[in-house]
Amino acid sequence: MSRKLTFIPGPIEFSANVLKAMATPSQAHTSPEFIKVFQSALQKTRRVFCSSPSSASQPFILSGSGTLGWDLCGANLVNRSDKVLVLSTGFFSDSFSNCLKVYSDHVDILEAESFGDVVDLQKFKSKISNLQYDVITITQTDTSSGVLSNVEEISKIIKDVSPNSLIVVDAVCATACESLEFDSWGIDYVLTASQKAIGVPAGLSISIASKRAIEKALSKEKPTSFFADMKRWIPIMQAYEAGKGAYFATPAVQLVHALDVSLDELLASGSIHERINAHKVASDNFKNKLVNELGLKLVPTSPSHAAHGLSVVYYPEGINGGDLLAKMAENGFTIASGIYKDYKDKYFRIGHMGDSVVGQRKDEFPQCYEALKKSLQQLGYKK
Amino acid sequence: MSRKLTFIPGPIEFSANVLKAMATPSQAHTSPEFIKVFQSALQKTRRVFCSSPSSASQPFILSGSGTLGWDLCGANLVNRSDKVLVLSTGFFSDSFSNCLKVYSDHVDILEAESFGDVVDLQKFKSKISNLQYDVITITQTDTSSGVLSNVEEISKIIKDVSPNSLIVVDAVCATACESLEFDSWGIDYVLTASQKAIGVPAGLSISIASKRAIEKALSKEKPTSFFADMKRWIPIMQAYEAGKGAYFATPAVQLVHALDVSLDELLASGSIHERINAHKVASDNFKNKLVNELGLKLVPTSPSHAAHGLSVVYYPEGINGGDLLAKMAENGFTIASGIYKDYKDKYFRIGHMGDSVVGQRKDEFPQCYEALKKSLQQLGYKK
Repeated sequence: MSRKLTFIPGPIEFSANVLKAMATPSQAHTSPEFIKVFQSALQKTRRVFCSSPSSASQPFILSGSGTLGWDLCGANLVNRSDKVLVLSTGFFSDSFSNCLKVYSDHVDILEAESFGDVVDLQKFKSKISNLQYDVITITQTDTSSGVLSNVEEISKIIKDVSPNSLIVVDAVCATACESLEFDSWGIDYVLTASQKAIGVPAGLSISIASKRAIEKALSKEKPTSFFADMKRWIPIMQAYEAGKGAYFATPAVQLVHALDVSLDELLASGSIHERINAHKVASDNFKNKLVNELGLKLVPTSPSHAAHGLSVVYYPEGINGGDLLAKMAENGFTIASGIYKDYKDKYFRIGHMGDSVVGQRKDEFPQCYEALKKSLQQLGYKK
Repeated sequence: MSRKLTFIPGPIEFSANVLKAMATPSQAHTSPEFIKVFQSALQKTRRVFCSSPSSASQPFILSGSGTLGWDLCGANLVNRSDKVLVLSTGFFSDSFSNCLKVYSDHVDILEAESFGDVVDLQKFKSKISNLQYDVITITQTDTSSGVLSNVEEISKIIKDVSPNSLIVVDAVCATACESLEFDSWGIDYVLTASQKAIGVPAGLSISIASKRAIEKALSKEKPTSFFADMKRWIPIMQAYEAGKGAYFATPAVQLVHALDVSLDELLASGSIHERINAHKVASDNFKNKLVNELGLKLVPTSPSHAAHGLSVVYYPEGINGGDLLAKMAENGFTIASGIYKDYKDKYFRIGHMGDSVVGQRKDEFPQCYEALKKSLQQLGYKK
């Protein structure tokens, strides 16, 4: 049997050209050849986040996992005495709050009422009306629950009720497959990672900060990290984007090459919007079939807040989770188990982002559906 | 003309099989296929550092640049009130001290008397006799000066005079091309990076901590970092080394594959010692020719403390640095400029580690020598 296809919510399957770029022969990190590639990747990163250079925002492409983006937020945008509010829709929101607790003594969490639900916006409004938060974080897609938060709406409320709060978005599993307009929605910091819908192997922390976020980072008196210190990275990123070399720590040359290739694929139609829309269409179609044809139940409690980069689904009654994952592997697909508190053995997750879904290899996504249908049948499941 | 060869002190040229492994198709980070590779890479990392599992040491293979290893030291092994001593032989030692100042209020630096020299060991002995340091750091090879510090001798002095001090070695440009016996020399923490003599593209921070270093990290009451928190990484590394999956942050799957392949090449003779010795022979031969045949002057003030992974050389009189680097590029090689304070325009650096020097492609190193000879001649240099 051929290799299993990776349909977890990241790392995803990579396009042939991205993988080829991973094997780019060595280049000096300050060579003219590499500077050009890094410059191009930074410029395109802005376009993925819908941010123009005139907004004085600052993209960061750093060697590290997505988690490093949490520390970039904590170490630079959060002061010890700051009040931080985390909107939680699952495991990853909670983990982000654990990171922020390293940097602030006042981290509050406002949780969704139940697993699979979004945060109640009336409660949120009342919370931020009563207490002025310095930083508010939203997990756009919580990869544990598949819940999509409405960043646009939440940001509007913040602008209205608490305009001085910095708006931080964990978009690790959302960037390039969910709408996000960095400049026009007035977001202050967004973080993502290479191995999700960005379509590049794991190893890059990718983020962007607004002018006022950068000003806060630069005004920090005493650094709380060295590797995650924006003060050190800003001149480096500015130099590369301007087509000049600079050095603080060695960039992951091959991953940046792969990123540059992948961003070309993502922006092929001229903007990121078409790619995002294609994910929506593919995801809605898949979820409809899961629910209507297979009779499965999604974890997100409404289609309106189901994320488009993955489907998070309860095991049907009588189906053992381990058996289903093993059967899917036999049928050619690696999918993921649950990952939230007491619920983790009750549901599974299928990631559907990137080349296998909306790119050259998009025929693989329907094959994944067929494999799921077959696996359930083989385990005796009937709708 | 064919591609220029990268002969800077990292990133280095990579073997064909390492580059091939970089393009490994996607795998889930907790899949049985990847767990096996990560387990193997962790076990071999121990062997590179000459540390046995029975010593209860802990290797770390993390997504990030070499600089992250400094934060791992600072955030876990250094408390705010700790006294830290940095032995400085150049730019990278000084940068390490800048990192440690983020985590401790008492960082002292003991510098070599002059650029190119090692730290005076009598002065060092007297310094640590007068003040008890909690942590002492040694930069084994300072990549800015090409100075090799005698880690074995310095460690012996510490064991003798200040046995409670943790011994930390920045071996970024030394691991796999300079001797280091982690267990038998009693070292507490060594950090390196993938893109130097380890022979893997940039993107991995690789390190190992001793039992007492781990105990100090685990006893820390309040974390000072999230991404660089050893408490979070230790169970993950232990799980993978035991052949089980675990999750804190997504590992760089393709880089770990490349690392596993490279470590096989490094340990092909059964231990790391032969590889290290081959670097020494190649380096000594090259330096002898630079000095005796070309009449050049090395930055390290004695051959006994010249590092073996690179050669750091003063421009001869009448030769403009920019011209020499450009001429070398024309002749097929990227080499590096200087990087230390007022000296940076006075010298150049040729990295000579890995496959192009002691591996399958070792004929490229003599070609680099010929290119240098030719470039100098073209610029009118006469011995």
